[in-house]
Amino acid sequence: SQAVRRTGLWMIGARGAIATTVAYGLAGLKHGLVDAIGVPTDLEPLRSLDLPGFDELVLGGHDVCRRGVASSADELVASGILRADLVEKVAGDAASYEAWLRPGILDGADSGFEDLDPRASDLGRLSPREKVAALTADIDAFEEENELDHTVVVYLASVEAQVPIQDSWATLASFESSLDGGEAQPASVLYAYAAIASGRAFVNFTPSVGASIPALEELAQGKGIPIAGRDGKTGETLVKSVLAPLFRARALKVLAWQGYNMLGNRDGESLRDPAHGAAKLASKDVALREILGSKGACGDEADELHTKVQIDYVPSLGDWKTAMDFVHFEGFLGARMSLQFTWFGCDSALAAPLVLDLARLSSHALRKGHGGVQAHLACYFKSPQGVDVHDFASQVDLLDAYARQFARP
Amino acid sequence: SQAVRRTGLWMIGARGAIATTVAYGLAGLKHGLVDAIGVPTDLEPLRSLDLPGFDELVLGGHDVCRRGVASSADELVASGILRADLVEKVAGDAASYEAWLRPGILDGADSGFEDLDPRASDLGRLSPREKVAALTADIDAFEEENELDHTVVVYLASVEAQVPIQDSWATLASFESSLDGGEAQPASVLYAYAAIASGRAFVNFTPSVGASIPALEELAQGKGIPIAGRDGKTGETLVKSVLAPLFRARALKVLAWQGYNMLGNRDGESLRDPAHGAAKLASKDVALREILGSKGACGDEADELHTKVQIDYVPSLGDWKTAMDFVHFEGFLGARMSLQFTWFGCDSALAAPLVLDLARLSSHALRKGHGGVQAHLACYFKSPQGVDVHDFASQVDLLDAYARQFARP
Amino acid sequence: SQAVRRTGLWMIGARGAIATTVAYGLAGLKHGLVDAIGVPTDLEPLRSLDLPGFDELVLGGHDVCRRGVASSADELVASGILRADLVEKVAGDAASYEAWLRPGILDGADSGFEDLDPRASDLGRLSPREKVAALTADIDAFEEENELDHTVVVYLASVEAQVPIQDSWATLASFESSLDGGEAQPASVLYAYAAIASGRAFVNFTPSVGASIPALEELAQGKGIPIAGRDGKTGETLVKSVLAPLFRARALKVLAWQGYNMLGNRDGESLRDPAHGAAKLASKDVALREILGSKGACGDEADELHTKVQIDYVPSLGDWKTAMDFVHFEGFLGARMSLQFTWFGCDSALAAPLVLDLARLSSHALRKGHGGVQAHLACYFKSPQGVDVHDFASQVDLLDAYARQFARP
Amino acid sequence: SQAVRRTGLWMIGARGAIATTVAYGLAGLKHGLVDAIGVPTDLEPLRSLDLPGFDELVLGGHDVCRRGVASSADELVASGILRADLVEKVAGDAASYEAWLRPGILDGADSGFEDLDPRASDLGRLSPREKVAALTADIDAFEEENELDHTVVVYLASVEAQVPIQDSWATLASFESSLDGGEAQPASVLYAYAAIASGRAFVNFTPSVGASIPALEELAQGKGIPIAGRDGKTGETLVKSVLAPLFRARALKVLAWQGYNMLGNRDGESLRDPAHGAAKLASKDVALREILGSKGACGDEADELHTKVQIDYVPSLGDWKTAMDFVHFEGFLGARMSLQFTWFGCDSALAAPLVLDLARLSSHALRKGHGGVQAHLACYFKSPQGVDVHDFASQVDLLDAYARQFARP
Repeated sequence: SQAVRRTGLWMIGARGAIATTVAYGLAGLKHGLVDAIGVPTDLEPLRSLDLPGFDELVLGGHDVCRRGVASSADELVASGILRADLVEKVAGDAASYEAWLRPGILDGADSGFEDLDPRASDLGRLSPREKVAALTADIDAFEEENELDHTVVVYLASVEAQVPIQDSWATLASFESSLDGGEAQPASVLYAYAAIASGRAFVNFTPSVGASIPALEELAQGKGIPIAGRDGKTGETLVKSVLAPLFRARALKVLAWQGYNMLGNRDGESLRDPAHGAAKLASKDVALREILGSKGACGDEADELHTKVQIDYVPSLGDWKTAMDFVHFEGFLGARMSLQFTWFGCDSALAAPLVLDLARLSSHALRKGHGGVQAHLACYFKSPQGVDVHDFASQVDLLDAYARQFARP
Repeated sequence: SQAVRRTGLWMIGARGAIATTVAYGLAGLKHGLVDAIGVPTDLEPLRSLDLPGFDELVLGGHDVCRRGVASSADELVASGILRADLVEKVAGDAASYEAWLRPGILDGADSGFEDLDPRASDLGRLSPREKVAALTADIDAFEEENELDHTVVVYLASVEAQVPIQDSWATLASFESSLDGGEAQPASVLYAYAAIASGRAFVNFTPSVGASIPALEELAQGKGIPIAGRDGKTGETLVKSVLAPLFRARALKVLAWQGYNMLGNRDGESLRDPAHGAAKLASKDVALREILGSKGACGDEADELHTKVQIDYVPSLGDWKTAMDFVHFEGFLGARMSLQFTWFGCDSALAAPLVLDLARLSSHALRKGHGGVQAHLACYFKSPQGVDVHDFASQVDLLDAYARQFARP
Repeated sequence: SQAVRRTGLWMIGARGAIATTVAYGLAGLKHGLVDAIGVPTDLEPLRSLDLPGFDELVLGGHDVCRRGVASSADELVASGILRADLVEKVAGDAASYEAWLRPGILDGADSGFEDLDPRASDLGRLSPREKVAALTADIDAFEEENELDHTVVVYLASVEAQVPIQDSWATLASFESSLDGGEAQPASVLYAYAAIASGRAFVNFTPSVGASIPALEELAQGKGIPIAGRDGKTGETLVKSVLAPLFRARALKVLAWQGYNMLGNRDGESLRDPAHGAAKLASKDVALREILGSKGACGDEADELHTKVQIDYVPSLGDWKTAMDFVHFEGFLGARMSLQFTWFGCDSALAAPLVLDLARLSSHALRKGHGGVQAHLACYFKSPQGVDVHDFASQVDLLDAYARQFARP
Repeated sequence: SQAVRRTGLWMIGARGAIATTVAYGLAGLKHGLVDAIGVPTDLEPLRSLDLPGFDELVLGGHDVCRRGVASSADELVASGILRADLVEKVAGDAASYEAWLRPGILDGADSGFEDLDPRASDLGRLSPREKVAALTADIDAFEEENELDHTVVVYLASVEAQVPIQDSWATLASFESSLDGGEAQPASVLYAYAAIASGRAFVNFTPSVGASIPALEELAQGKGIPIAGRDGKTGETLVKSVLAPLFRARALKVLAWQGYNMLGNRDGESLRDPAHGAAKLASKDVALREILGSKGACGDEADELHTKVQIDYVPSLGDWKTAMDFVHFEGFLGARMSLQFTWFGCDSALAAPLVLDLARLSSHALRKGHGGVQAHLACYFKSPQGVDVHDFASQVDLLDAYARQFARP
């Protein structure tokens, strides 16, 4: 009795590792070749929500490179993330995906892409308003030709250079007049504006600015469009966000928390540049400060907390993120103790199912008319928009409460 | 305007490492020589409860050994847990504590204590009813002479040999007629009965049976006496109980969880005996099964979860528990990943402040007339009585809810 | 100007993971599809020896199972050890190898193989002398039909149940009269006898008895046949044998060394049986005792050294051995320090190139007429025959000295 | 029959953690309060050399601070390195040591010491020649008044800012004319010159320049004075220098070696300054390159080796250095494996006994007339002077050979 709901999932950074993993993984799910392991919406309580099925999702996206999706898939096979036989079996789905990939816009400050799509360079010469129009037209066509009910845009592009907060971001009016005036904006902001203004949900899986500015929150709220972000919480920060509350709950005093991350994918390479790395590191460090600093300090020397987060590019690791954290803490009677952990995880395999979750949950919000910041999606993000909760268990509680509230009867 | 509430804290195993740490640590707190680091009731939301102050707690206890408290303290100084200057400064408090130590009863199957108090051996020849009477008389005298409002008994003795469930434990009536008949009972059960029957709260910080049998839960409920247990959650299991929910919430499939614990204190030595170790290991393993097994499995092969918990005696480590855990898990597309952690913690320094918490919270329950199993204290225990929740964050939520409900205006 | 030297490499346990990796890896080397990474004889100073080339090695072997080599290869592809494309490209070589596989003999106490070759069961009914004759005939035919100069037999079968030392092992005469009398012998001993008595070098890569008995050392010495063993040193023990000498050289006192090994291959499964595991554990523990105990003790309390080696079966790990070691040590002024390491290695990929090395070096010894125990091969083994040196650097020095002595001009 | 040989041990940085540990530790050894654990010269084969006994060593030194030795000792007690009772019992020896401490010279570029001795500032206004004369006069007086046979100067001061190689360092003549001309030199170079020119052995336990320049090697050689250095090998680099040869010997290809060091002592604080840290990091990284790069590469892509060494200041750790290393390597058939280790060591307790060793061995060389660079002491240093060997086992072989050559009959 349930009508088919065709939902578009439009990915920015569509030829990258995560988007490619989404494309092949979703095809595997549709054909029953892959289990939904790592996909929380497939488990209770989330599966009680009336979400679009895997076979109701249709893929497309923007990218500034022209590396073929099959070539991205080959890299993922080589690093042991995609199985060669899966890639072969769903080649048709991959081709359908590639048919809906369009040239995207570069972030102003960016350069040096190996495989830059010349059409992306051409788009770079347009005014901000023209860029927005071009991006919107692509998604309009995608939605129309695929007869989609609606579309969720998920931003997965490489992290942008960090920019200072701009005055024009304060209100929708000032932002739009800045656009009219032709002032440059980070690419992620233009993508977000294009999505929201044209009625698409916008999810920012990266630390770039995206829709996290008052102007766009105002727009989303006003138009009843769901937005969510920032920076997918897939590895070391995820572990931190369950361990830090333990120290707080036991009134233990964290003296130092050193986190050394190593990875070798394109993301790791781009983070080597200090301008790009800064946004990422800020996003990774905030959780500890929020959980331990303002709320969990014991004694009056909260300022003693010593933390470090570092991301090193280690090419041989490829997409296999290895993080080594050392936590030094003090207990009763001054006892100095430690907890050390090593996380060895495959970034794309951890991120891709969360992208599917966010697409399904944003589609649900679109259908229900839940506009504005989706604070109940905090558990997916390192820097959650709309709520200052970093403790993972509390974030999960928010989502579970949403699921119970809107569960199908 | 608040009346002084003198609360007795009567510890079983009163000459052991944890009780000694409690005695010196509490004295340090009273004299302002020690900060309340590691003491959760000193932080919000628990500090909003009307709990007895540190200076309102009076200490005494039972032990089967006669090793002096000062000698136990020297061992703790040598292993770096107590500072020599603190031991010196609060020697008077320690002497007052020692003045209230009384010979306890041995568990039937036990033997081989180095320093056995001959009076404990004498008590061993009494009938169960006579033992209970002797134990009760000691606490009565303690309470009366110290003009205490009430007393909380905390069981800290070495883990007992595991015994099968006895038929007589099913109801209070059958248990009491078994006592009348002179049938042997584990020492922890007699201690628990003596406490509850005489109106004292009973907290079991060990994996021994204690008050975890239907007969004693019935007694506690009937008399309005709070009971709580079992097995203090201080180290590796604590970490497990925040990490396991992470895997469940992300729908990741845990393939194997191997936990290797090393410690060198008397506890470690006694756990070498398989009969004693069994109770401990069962208690340590149940959390994973509860969190991942019945509720968090992804896929239909829940039985594949492979776990191991092991405790090895490594004499050079003394009270410094070192645990190395390896978690092997599978994510989307079959990616095999791992999380490894090393916990290096000082058992007594972690346990002692929790004993203080449990004494203060049980005193609160006594005063409020909350009888029976205190399920909201689950976060303190590896095998919580009264509730089948092992996920630490959910356990903390239970306690926080209690704190908010009964917070002082 | 150098004549081709065709050398047979006859593997016992020929359908197992290591032998299969040798077969496919050697084929890859011959066809230039694989680099000689992990093959020490390909580097100086060993490559200066006049060793048979990879393309001069011809493979065959015994096994008691009938699982196809291609099926073993599929398992290795699934666990990420062999690449699917390599398996496909060298399928012809694999077929040639399989054509030279013959049914082997079971160790008396063994049973429960899934895939037991019924011809192996038949062989089990023969007398020891008849078994030896059957094994020898297989190798004779292999050598003759392939026109080989000589053959090296490498023992790679699953570890046998540990047996007590037998009186008849003391001399060749007593051993041979025991054989004549039909007394049962471990299979590894019969394989070793068959090899040596028929003029083939014998290398024991397992902890089973093999040629490590006086009777067979006497035979090898008398006939000028090289023998070497026992138990390939590929992982945790290898790391131990470089770290332990560090503590000795710095006069640091090792207090405890705990080694926890996890693996999930057939080897791990067979080691679960205590009778089989005992031989392995003894072999793994001896190095520490030799390096630290008798020679490296500081102070007079050498007996305080506390060690543990454990092997746990963790099915999800497959061939990927994960070892976590914790070393607790004392330095000047009683400072207690620690070194912890985690080894994550692929057993078959580490072992296979060492099998190639041992075949090449034994062939060299055969040609040079170096009979008896090859003590200079100690660095390949956990329990080196012929020399009581476990320190890896000293073992490498022995091999390097041999290489320099016999280097091609 | 052996005459008493009174040997001076003159330490630069005499009020720092290492020198203080030497002073109290040596006093403990003399009074039989401390075992010689961690002192290699107390074990064979080194103890067969005719070395000065612990009770034949007399201590003095230079420092630019005026923090009392007892105050340095208190810090070491607080961080658990010195026992309070030892400090009390040998207070007399400490006072004797302090009586022989003299103000030293600052490195030109340095500033910002908390506790700067104003006399050290005064010395800073002298010409290089005058500084050398002042330093020499202090040691002359020390030697004369204590009736010493000779003196070994050990340089332990904080690492200096890295300076470019100077032309004047090329020969003794050019160096001395530069001194005559009043050109500034690093303090470590002036200390070294003062020592060698006045006939004292000079040992550089830091990465500063010291005697590692051709001019001073020429001087030491010409005058028959032993010199040795640089940078004591006590922790992470020590472990690296036994593990790296393992990979080379097994022909395994190291892809990446990331080393993260954390420490919280004054050394850690001074290394935060990039100018000071550079010398240290260069010294720590060279071993891997020497062992794996030029000699141990497998395949032709030696340039792929990716290494990182980092030192982070983590104040809570004090003198307890914690290092986490991750080694990623490739074996046969492209298998990617890893070795990870965590070193938790007490820097001063590791360094102090090596200072005693170096003093005793340099005294031996002085007596035997072995002038110039003591290459056989390489095992004590991260950047050994006089020999390009970093592999620890080979370094130990050099020292053992020396010990056997000069062993007492």
